Amino acid sequence: MKAAGVVVEYNPLHNGHVHHLKETRRITDADVVIAVMSGNFLQRGEPAFIDKWTRTELALTSGADIVLELPYRFAVAQASEFAEGAIGILAAARCSMYCFGSEDGRIEPFLNTLRLLEDEETGYEAEVRRLVKTGISYPSALSQAYRSVAEASADTGPLADLTKPNNILGFHYMKAARSIAPEMTAFTIGRTGTGYHDLVADPDSGIMSATAIREAVRTEGITDGVLRAVPARTASAMDLFREEHSGFGGWDRFWPILRPLIIRDGAGRLRETAEMTEGLEHRIVRAALEASTFTEFMEAVKTKRYTWTRIQRILIHVLCGMDRNDFSRLRHPRYLRLLGMTAAGRTYLNLYKDDFGLPLVSRAASSDDPMLAADIRASDMYAVGIGDRPGKDFRTRPIMTD
Amino acid sequence: MKAAGVVVEYNPLHNGHVHHLKETRRITDADVVIAVMSGNFLQRGEPAFIDKWTRTELALTSGADIVLELPYRFAVAQASEFAEGAIGILAAARCSMYCFGSEDGRIEPFLNTLRLLEDEETGYEAEVRRLVKTGISYPSALSQAYRSVAEASADTGPLADLTKPNNILGFHYMKAARSIAPEMTAFTIGRTGTGYHDLVADPDSGIMSATAIREAVRTEGITDGVLRAVPARTASAMDLFREEHSGFGGWDRFWPILRPLIIRDGAGRLRETAEMTEGLEHRIVRAALEASTFTEFMEAVKTKRYTWTRIQRILIHVLCGMDRNDFSRLRHPRYLRLLGMTAAGRTYLNLYKDDFGLPLVSRAASSDDPMLAADIRASDMYAVGIGDRPGKDFRTRPIMTD
Repeated sequence: MKAAGVVVEYNPLHNGHVHHLKETRRITDADVVIAVMSGNFLQRGEPAFIDKWTRTELALTSGADIVLELPYRFAVAQASEFAEGAIGILAAARCSMYCFGSEDGRIEPFLNTLRLLEDEETGYEAEVRRLVKTGISYPSALSQAYRSVAEASADTGPLADLTKPNNILGFHYMKAARSIAPEMTAFTIGRTGTGYHDLVADPDSGIMSATAIREAVRTEGITDGVLRAVPARTASAMDLFREEHSGFGGWDRFWPILRPLIIRDGAGRLRETAEMTEGLEHRIVRAALEASTFTEFMEAVKTKRYTWTRIQRILIHVLCGMDRNDFSRLRHPRYLRLLGMTAAGRTYLNLYKDDFGLPLVSRAASSDDPMLAADIRASDMYAVGIGDRPGKDFRTRPIMTD
Repeated sequence: MKAAGVVVEYNPLHNGHVHHLKETRRITDADVVIAVMSGNFLQRGEPAFIDKWTRTELALTSGADIVLELPYRFAVAQASEFAEGAIGILAAARCSMYCFGSEDGRIEPFLNTLRLLEDEETGYEAEVRRLVKTGISYPSALSQAYRSVAEASADTGPLADLTKPNNILGFHYMKAARSIAPEMTAFTIGRTGTGYHDLVADPDSGIMSATAIREAVRTEGITDGVLRAVPARTASAMDLFREEHSGFGGWDRFWPILRPLIIRDGAGRLRETAEMTEGLEHRIVRAALEASTFTEFMEAVKTKRYTWTRIQRILIHVLCGMDRNDFSRLRHPRYLRLLGMTAAGRTYLNLYKDDFGLPLVSRAASSDDPMLAADIRASDMYAVGIGDRPGKDFRTRPIMTD
């Protein structure tokens, strides 16, 4: 059986995602589609809108055959590590292909970009370092350095536009695959409709970004526009989640937990948090003492040097107790954590389970593995934040659909 | 000027406390009475019913001339360390006398007890160790061993009854004074009315225990019985506090903060908490994952080996980030933290401030001192728990009354 992989967050799953799953199956001609999906905390440093078990079920009923959890260590990390973890897992699950959505929609510009940055590595990296020293954020430095290098080089062919968020991720998948799994074939499909951050969408298009959907649902509920933009199951899942948890996952729910953690820990302990940068811990403590809402807090912490996303990720690390040492020690995936499967997915797993590159974990039986312990702790913190009962990772079997 | 010291919690201040202050002044013939008072967390491992600034004001209007804060390190500690910290501070503030309330009401039995335990030290300590090994709690072992030693000795004269909570504290004050400040003279007055834990009191007596008052106010509000048992200022302070903080300090308010702290920290970090005993950290984590209320949680944690009080103190240490290393490093008072004074108190402080055994701190200007940092962090956590603005220790000047 041939498997194609996708890397997803589904926060929440919408029509664009369904399209991506269908197209992945069509253009790769795969027998099964394996989705590696973030758990309850996301790459942009946010608690998931709805929990990972609900999102797994939506994935399975929308075209994915197997859902594997992207461990917290990679799910809440910068794009390059996010990509390395995801590609490592897809490769270990014997995917011979993977397919990502991108603004560019073609593979060739990514290949050109990869080649260019490989050829110009030294100059590019020196330029990144120079730019970071001027006080701008790391992502801005990357993109400016890339532009300089691209402008200086003649005749590369079309290059990927690395100011676009999905292109950036796609680039990192391909870069990771080049070293981890060069045998996997990359596919990309063009993203239709809105960009990541667009809050406004053509109400008739049936396409809204996940950000726009969350914003609409939070403020206006499940509007007609939302109903057109998501599968019916997503709509009812959101309805149920709101009913059971008096709202959705988001920083507003986690701020009352985060704030005492920061004040209790103090700068000394915060310094040991993953991704923390020298000095930021003091800003964080001061802001936590002063601010009464999460937005006030973030406005007080923010500086030109750190992106909002980076700061939010650090806060998730504070919340979930991910410290610097564990973060740098845990560089590679250690297991395939099965969240759910269809009948076809089950056949695939039965067929190949002895040949996977990593052990398959169907249910967390203990948290002896430090990477798995971090996943479980993150789930427990999520549960506490949304008013759920912790320990779900131990209690829940993988979801099975037909 | 002659100063007499008292050691207090005032949780909240009631008629029994007023009587104690008046009697202290009368029998010691002191010019000023200095109260060393716990801050926002108490020896039995509980958040204070009302905050330390409010309690300071009540103390000053009820007969104390100077209120010094008993640092967190001693306020939330077992009786012997609580006493050592308090006596150390009173001695440094040049008290030549101190006076405690006790069930016995006379000094002689305490002197007999001290002498007996000094004479029988080896046998007593061996018996304590033997009893602890049988699995009973440390306080039970102390009191059983004391009984054995007392029974075996003839002709000691009357002994203090160390099953009584105020006698126990009194004994520890006198034991501490014997080594820290042998020049201070001890006085004691008999406690009138109810014992510490009695919830029911004669409604006409004007005497209710602090526990009974808190219980009544929480469940029924400021009843006639409460009004008879506390000064008018205490009643109005409780009224105001409830209005401003939608309730009172207590574990019910702090459980929603404590639980995520425990789950986030996990057994590994909890092990480093002050007063934590081997193995208890696992019980605490398991209980936090399972329980949804503080009472459920405590029922799940409790064992015969640890007293309820000891466990609650450990939880306060978790809440306030007091770790094992700091706790054992900070053995002696390092400053006199002034919370408030009357005019007479001010005269006394002006007269002797250069002769005190420790530096006088009128306002926390920084938290460079680790003992003071712990006090400030505890206040900030208290503020977060009761929905107040943190940072009060930096903003508030000592309270002054006529």
